[in-house]
Amino acid sequence: MAKQEDLFKNVISHAKEYGYIFASSEIYDGLSAVYDYGQNGAELKKNIRDYWWKSMVQLHQEIVGVDAAILMHPATWKASGHVDAFNDPLIDNKDSKKRYRADVLVEDHAEKIYQKAQKEIEKARKRFGDSFDEEQFVTTNDRVQRYLGQRKEILERLGQSLTNEDLKDVKDLIEELGIADPETGSKNWTEVRQFNLMFGTKLGASADTATNLYLRPETAQGIFVNFSNVQKTGRMKIPFGIAQTGKAFRNEIVARQFIFRMREFEQMEMQYFVRPGEELKWYEHWKELRLKWHLSLGLGEENYRFHDHDKLAHYANAAADIEFNYPFGFKELEGIHSRTDFDLKAHEEHSGKKLRFYDPELKENYVPYVIETSIGLDRMFLAVLSAALKEEELEDGSSRTVLKLPAILAPYKAAVLPLVKKDGLPELANEIIEDLKWDFNVQYDEKDAIGRRYRRQDAAGTPLCITVDHESLENRSVTVRFRDTMEQKRVHISELSAVIDAEVNFKHWMKK
Amino acid sequence: MAKQEDLFKNVISHAKEYGYIFASSEIYDGLSAVYDYGQNGAELKKNIRDYWWKSMVQLHQEIVGVDAAILMHPATWKASGHVDAFNDPLIDNKDSKKRYRADVLVEDHAEKIYQKAQKEIEKARKRFGDSFDEEQFVTTNDRVQRYLGQRKEILERLGQSLTNEDLKDVKDLIEELGIADPETGSKNWTEVRQFNLMFGTKLGASADTATNLYLRPETAQGIFVNFSNVQKTGRMKIPFGIAQTGKAFRNEIVARQFIFRMREFEQMEMQYFVRPGEELKWYEHWKELRLKWHLSLGLGEENYRFHDHDKLAHYANAAADIEFNYPFGFKELEGIHSRTDFDLKAHEEHSGKKLRFYDPELKENYVPYVIETSIGLDRMFLAVLSAALKEEELEDGSSRTVLKLPAILAPYKAAVLPLVKKDGLPELANEIIEDLKWDFNVQYDEKDAIGRRYRRQDAAGTPLCITVDHESLENRSVTVRFRDTMEQKRVHISELSAVIDAEVNFKHWMKK
Repeated sequence: MAKQEDLFKNVISHAKEYGYIFASSEIYDGLSAVYDYGQNGAELKKNIRDYWWKSMVQLHQEIVGVDAAILMHPATWKASGHVDAFNDPLIDNKDSKKRYRADVLVEDHAEKIYQKAQKEIEKARKRFGDSFDEEQFVTTNDRVQRYLGQRKEILERLGQSLTNEDLKDVKDLIEELGIADPETGSKNWTEVRQFNLMFGTKLGASADTATNLYLRPETAQGIFVNFSNVQKTGRMKIPFGIAQTGKAFRNEIVARQFIFRMREFEQMEMQYFVRPGEELKWYEHWKELRLKWHLSLGLGEENYRFHDHDKLAHYANAAADIEFNYPFGFKELEGIHSRTDFDLKAHEEHSGKKLRFYDPELKENYVPYVIETSIGLDRMFLAVLSAALKEEELEDGSSRTVLKLPAILAPYKAAVLPLVKKDGLPELANEIIEDLKWDFNVQYDEKDAIGRRYRRQDAAGTPLCITVDHESLENRSVTVRFRDTMEQKRVHISELSAVIDAEVNFKHWMKK
Repeated sequence: MAKQEDLFKNVISHAKEYGYIFASSEIYDGLSAVYDYGQNGAELKKNIRDYWWKSMVQLHQEIVGVDAAILMHPATWKASGHVDAFNDPLIDNKDSKKRYRADVLVEDHAEKIYQKAQKEIEKARKRFGDSFDEEQFVTTNDRVQRYLGQRKEILERLGQSLTNEDLKDVKDLIEELGIADPETGSKNWTEVRQFNLMFGTKLGASADTATNLYLRPETAQGIFVNFSNVQKTGRMKIPFGIAQTGKAFRNEIVARQFIFRMREFEQMEMQYFVRPGEELKWYEHWKELRLKWHLSLGLGEENYRFHDHDKLAHYANAAADIEFNYPFGFKELEGIHSRTDFDLKAHEEHSGKKLRFYDPELKENYVPYVIETSIGLDRMFLAVLSAALKEEELEDGSSRTVLKLPAILAPYKAAVLPLVKKDGLPELANEIIEDLKWDFNVQYDEKDAIGRRYRRQDAAGTPLCITVDHESLENRSVTVRFRDTMEQKRVHISELSAVIDAEVNFKHWMKK
């Protein structure tokens, strides 16, 4: 655990040091749970977005894109249920004036009880040494059983209260458990109230004519409201999909874990419209396809797992997450949801417009069912970055920090390095860049000894280093060094384009 | 003029019919001055953004990107001057309760007077026929001279009042000129007040701890606040640039002209940091380079012109627009501004952090000067779309609608069309797509007669049509039809990739 926390801290500081992620408005001491992408981060983020877009839209004849605005007609969020039901249960401490998520207070309390059980187990492990049988101990030890039972009871009651929207019982639970303000110890609580997570703003100038708008909390509705326009003008036939990437905003009370849960974030979503009754077949299809996409990046099969939802959202009849093994454990990276016809039907009702498809084979008009694949671009970024960051022991006893980004996602594909800053080597290096830059993002670097430059490019995640030396002047050959293996080989300048292409070719990556 | 208005209407309806632009939340009757990009629009917009990014960032070793959040620390907007000075002067009519921009009311009045002068000139032109000398007539005709003089006087007084922030005089001017509410004729006006154009929102849940935030009204400040982080972690040396694309928001009272002036829009900006004293050299450099970029797209040199600003913003010591010939006249497409050290200095003062560069050649620390290139992505989209849309008379007497988009920007690069829907032609067409789709966005289309499909692809802007016929089955040759010339040539399937590449190659376009 300690090691994983260290890893997470390393990821965060490495992200800053190498220009991947900065705190937003850092010179003003930052804005909580908002981050900016630096010079390398902007490229990595763009490359992830492009990789998704190409594999979803360009490779699928039946999927097209849209780019809907962040501001939408407020009726959209009434229809989608966000105005009424997109809430967190909050509680205020009357003494400290601090505000908390009531469910998180209870969950943290339950976690503490669980930690007590863990402590008992740990103590017993030390006492019994090699002969310790954890399973047997847990099932027979009264104290451990009591702790685990308490925890289970608390979480079940919380779950029930939230499901029944019985906020009074959540408050009762907090009082019965004697939960205190974690910062001040006060138990003087207000009632629990629902707080909507959408950011609001006002359109128009005068108070009496201003329209209350929301910053969209998800991109999906931008697809649903455009369903008919895209279907008709694009002459799409079911099954077909609409894909979109873009910003969404949630006024999270407890936003944490770096870029994992931000108030402003970017989604990559695809809504696949299918015949009613065929949705579960397509749901399985997209689960499989999306996992395959993640695996194509080669970050390690063991880092992914499915988590099928037992409790379904009101709009879904099946849902699963693809979870990724983050430095803080397995967490949701992407969701695949069978959303039924909930959204389109809700928009039909609220807008009075028909959102149907005439199926020429069935000779029937219907509201299509929807399979959604929804991925957080920032979460994907964090997954890639944290899986890529390695401390390696080398054969000579030294160590190196290397960012083993999938080459297709790396900000710079190659760095071109003159061995020395004279004798015409910089000129030849720049000649090489002038040739390569049309097809690849490449970087020139002449400062410091060559070994140090290699290390710097390793840490920045550049897959290839191209070194120009005196021999290059004679026969136009250069050394290509590969980041991951540190192998070097000599190639002719005219081959460089092919060498880079072999590393970053889209088809090659997608077919993995 | 009538013809130009028709052209604009055509652009708007064509944009909808072919899936380029839809009104936002159209099923809820739209959200004023907000638009969504449809299946073709999303691709065209993305391609414009990529063309800009590649030519600014990938081609310039000394320019890097960032991707800063829309939400920023509110002190940012205090420092930049937006909290205090990003205002429109508004006036309300007390009877109609309608709100107007006071300066626009006055300008519209002046325009009407100008139109009177134009009418006199037109009358005289009819009377005198070929012998009419407009210049002489204007300088000697009393009535025309009076109108022109009145107009000049009004605009000068308005300019002075606004510069002096003398809103009372703007109100006096409106009353002296007898300007009435254009909708109701009432002259019962309120005072003129300044109204801030930034959208506000609140971060955090509780009323007493909520932070007032703004949706950024420009992307530039996201670059300035990250200046030091990028310079240091990217080891950048002056001169260097930071580029960014992203959304910005302005609560415009009078938003109009389709996607030309929207409340939510996207900018593509680059801030170039230079030595103090060298800024005007770089200003000229970027003016030239940016115009060249626009011309590379081949939309017609006559459609662009520079407009040098006489009146400079408080932060600038030189500024020019690249104007484009829109269907509603020449209007700003891109701005090139010499912003001095205004922004960095303001952030130094407000944040207490040093935003300096140590110049190793001068052995001196200084706040760099900034040249900004700022382009509206949506305006660029509208420029491309309206210049590309043509009604052509053909040799056979028929006509066609064709969207002559630069091939590098076109949503689909090619459509693959089986001549008939049988005999294995669809299968071969799909085989071709399976091969091309890794490198190009291509589309399959089998519905309707081949001529109709060509017309449809012409109108959608697809540069190439690839037709598979019975001969293709025998010798694997296909017909390639070029959108602009309607020429057709027979090529082997194995050559298709090279044929498309010749049309969309980045280097080829940029070197134009």
